[in-house]
Amino acid sequence: MMVMEYEGRILVIDAGLSFPKDELLGIDLIIPDFSYIRDRADMVEAVLLTHGHEDHVGALPFFLREINVPVYGTRLTLGLVKNKLEEHGLADRVDLREIVADEPKQIGPFHCDFISVTHSIPDGVALAITTSVGTVVHTGDFKLDPNPIDKRRTNMGKFGELGAQGVLMLLSDSTNAEVEGVTGPEKSVGKTLEQTFRQAQGRIIAASFASHIHRIQQIVDVSKRHRRKLAIVGRSMVRNAQMARELGYLNIPEEMLISLGEIDNFKPSKIVILSSGSQGEPLSALTRMAFGDHKKVKLEPGDTVILSARPVPGNEVSVHTVINRLFKQGVRVVYESVAPVHVSGHAAREELKMIINLTQPKFFMPIHGEYRHLYFHAELAEEMGMDRKRIVMASNGDVIQASDGKVKIVDKIDAGMTFVDGLDVGDIQDVTLRDRQKLSRDGTFIVVAPVREQDGSVVAPPDITAKGFVYMGNRRELMKEVSALVKETMKDGATLAITDPGLLQEHIHSRLAKFLYKKTKKRPLIMVIVVEV
Amino acid sequence: MMVMEYEGRILVIDAGLSFPKDELLGIDLIIPDFSYIRDRADMVEAVLLTHGHEDHVGALPFFLREINVPVYGTRLTLGLVKNKLEEHGLADRVDLREIVADEPKQIGPFHCDFISVTHSIPDGVALAITTSVGTVVHTGDFKLDPNPIDKRRTNMGKFGELGAQGVLMLLSDSTNAEVEGVTGPEKSVGKTLEQTFRQAQGRIIAASFASHIHRIQQIVDVSKRHRRKLAIVGRSMVRNAQMARELGYLNIPEEMLISLGEIDNFKPSKIVILSSGSQGEPLSALTRMAFGDHKKVKLEPGDTVILSARPVPGNEVSVHTVINRLFKQGVRVVYESVAPVHVSGHAAREELKMIINLTQPKFFMPIHGEYRHLYFHAELAEEMGMDRKRIVMASNGDVIQASDGKVKIVDKIDAGMTFVDGLDVGDIQDVTLRDRQKLSRDGTFIVVAPVREQDGSVVAPPDITAKGFVYMGNRRELMKEVSALVKETMKDGATLAITDPGLLQEHIHSRLAKFLYKKTKKRPLIMVIVVEV
Repeated sequence: MMVMEYEGRILVIDAGLSFPKDELLGIDLIIPDFSYIRDRADMVEAVLLTHGHEDHVGALPFFLREINVPVYGTRLTLGLVKNKLEEHGLADRVDLREIVADEPKQIGPFHCDFISVTHSIPDGVALAITTSVGTVVHTGDFKLDPNPIDKRRTNMGKFGELGAQGVLMLLSDSTNAEVEGVTGPEKSVGKTLEQTFRQAQGRIIAASFASHIHRIQQIVDVSKRHRRKLAIVGRSMVRNAQMARELGYLNIPEEMLISLGEIDNFKPSKIVILSSGSQGEPLSALTRMAFGDHKKVKLEPGDTVILSARPVPGNEVSVHTVINRLFKQGVRVVYESVAPVHVSGHAAREELKMIINLTQPKFFMPIHGEYRHLYFHAELAEEMGMDRKRIVMASNGDVIQASDGKVKIVDKIDAGMTFVDGLDVGDIQDVTLRDRQKLSRDGTFIVVAPVREQDGSVVAPPDITAKGFVYMGNRRELMKEVSALVKETMKDGATLAITDPGLLQEHIHSRLAKFLYKKTKKRPLIMVIVVEV
Repeated sequence: MMVMEYEGRILVIDAGLSFPKDELLGIDLIIPDFSYIRDRADMVEAVLLTHGHEDHVGALPFFLREINVPVYGTRLTLGLVKNKLEEHGLADRVDLREIVADEPKQIGPFHCDFISVTHSIPDGVALAITTSVGTVVHTGDFKLDPNPIDKRRTNMGKFGELGAQGVLMLLSDSTNAEVEGVTGPEKSVGKTLEQTFRQAQGRIIAASFASHIHRIQQIVDVSKRHRRKLAIVGRSMVRNAQMARELGYLNIPEEMLISLGEIDNFKPSKIVILSSGSQGEPLSALTRMAFGDHKKVKLEPGDTVILSARPVPGNEVSVHTVINRLFKQGVRVVYESVAPVHVSGHAAREELKMIINLTQPKFFMPIHGEYRHLYFHAELAEEMGMDRKRIVMASNGDVIQASDGKVKIVDKIDAGMTFVDGLDVGDIQDVTLRDRQKLSRDGTFIVVAPVREQDGSVVAPPDITAKGFVYMGNRRELMKEVSALVKETMKDGATLAITDPGLLQEHIHSRLAKFLYKKTKKRPLIMVIVVEV
């Protein structure tokens, strides 16, 4: 999410979400911290979307629930957003406004150009936003596919034109700044698909990202050539395919489509199943098939699974587990390590250079990527002759000021992450995550110590419960020892129990922690509850 | 771990461990299930080690503690094992016997040939084990580096000789069966190191696997050429370097070595720090440096970090986090995505073919790799003309019988995984891991309900504690509601409390679970403890 401010008016560019890494136990989603913009809600003109991927539109429902402003996007992008808003019960309340590449719009004081770009989702745009201060070009996510599936190329001419008129600052996609050369064209995947289809004797199950409409189109096209029927499985895949067909982005002849229930009415060599789950997501259709517990699709030797995607960093092990399980079922699996069934959607170094050359920006800011990607993108700009001082390496929260033809970081605002945890959206604190980590490693140990209120004496033996904690050595023996230890501590602390039960709790806690660590080398989360009766 | 049995005698080949995936919360290590061999302990002649990597020797201490038999290995392998046994307090009790490549040994009824192979650790051997049934060749982990650092090549001649004499079965390393061509030679890394050293102005921090003695030698050699002093940091790196020097596998001139405390006495351009932590391990020296909390090494702009390793699957995100943190400190990072600073230690497809061609085995069994790797290795053997029926795809626990010149799977024994959890070695049950998963996602909710033993009446308000559970909506309000709900259930259940406290517990549990899910969409692990007083 990026905020542009000019003469007291604000334009928000994209509102994405990310998925938590493993150490953020239990967190469902990460969305941007809206506090800066929440304080300036009445200044916001609109949200502009570059394309429909989750990391660009996923936080919109959370944002719009608080700040309901018009949302501008291309037709497909808005189609995806609509589905999302419906899920959140917001569809009726939001003002979606369609934009078309090459048709500029004036939004408040911002003159906005929308430039078509190619990416791993159709209908992406770059933005050129002009005010009296100058023009800022924001590439969105892009690559320079010279011959895309929908023939809608990146409008290089427009980048060049903007460059000729003068670009104050270029913000450019850094994802592949480590990768030499140019990114392969989407059509190259079609060739691999064709080969795989030719060799496949049985059914073909093709999995990809549900938003990768061009990939899906290629799978449809090759299926059609091989006279195979197509069934679609997986909630996101079904929904996106339907939406993309309705909006005219995906062409599937009606007579090709069959329901999952019908697949057994055809010869295996006449069937393609288009599936979600290319990231090894635990509950996805493909993972269920791999583990043999999909209700409607039972894989058989002779079937071919095409994984037309790359594991997102962090998903490698899950994806490989799915691949291994598929092979064990006697299925042939075609995936990126063994055949070119995927190409990236992001520009590699030669393409990045091209955009810098075309736009000739006065200032440059690498965006979108891990820090290492920004680093290499900045270095690349420098190698192309750009003065290091004109390269802005910004972090989340940095405020960049452009005035008098100069650009610099002038301030830092709070702009961390907001965790979504169940229905909770907000400050999930470190202590909670630390507790969860401790619980996840060593489990928990709960001690209830009942003492008499009057004299602090032991009313009943302590109640001891362990969860997620194991000690196989001699568990019963251990529990007895724990019980004795707690009882003894209770007796010793009888006077404490009257004056300061909290202190008695601490005593029990510390003696028990030491004892358990010595005996088991584990440090469970210990909770001691002194009950006065 | 593999077991060979002949005329009532047993030879164990390797005893490795693996590290748990994320879903095995809190588990420290995974070792083989020894139950089959435990029942046949008196039949075991010895353990044979192919090389010193953790996945081949890591479970030895656990094994030897139960079944103390002689261990055969090359000098470096035994050096690493010795360190490990010392840690476990077993060093005095174990009979370690050194083997030398090309010097066969008779171990019980087994005639054993040891064949030198190149790998990412020195002193690796393949095994050829001959009985009256025939010769079984086990490659260990290998590649065919034509010009290794220590000039100790894979003994291709011996493989050919065995082939000429007749090999009943070949067991071969499948790790890189997906990779076309041949694996790059170790020396190619030296060239990248040289280039990086030439460009580096400040200090150089080089991280690699602590057991990769040849990589370390190359780092030492280039440091020497550039007249830099060398300090070593990280427990495993210090220990392995010392051991490898003592045994003559690593040559570091005494005058080059300095202690970490001395690094500031030299110009940055005269310093190399050899560090562990190439996998982004949380407590490693390199990770501490990256996060700015290493006691003795504070990184500075101008420093160069060389990550001379590839992330092991599952470690990608941790490694990238370390790289990003290093860049943020203004350090230049050289790693595999941007420079060839690492080569694999495993044979690629052309090398795998070579071994099959040299040994001309009657039967073939792909080993060492995920199932997908075994699959592609089997397919490769088939492409080379081997009859599919002569290829054995075995899983853990399969018993393979060779007799009358035939090889087949005849039985399946229990041979799962054994988890090591703290000091616990044994059956950590699914329920424990499920509890830990629940705890890690949604935390825990503990309710202590004190009731009077005589009449089941409520003695005091319930005590309610939440850990790792968050609800930011209105937490105090929620806790009040929970308290009221529990109290009400206690009152309703007063008669239950006398007759069946367990049932009262269940009532409270189920009502509370429903309530919390409805309010928060979280399912914490709920524990209800009814205390009778």
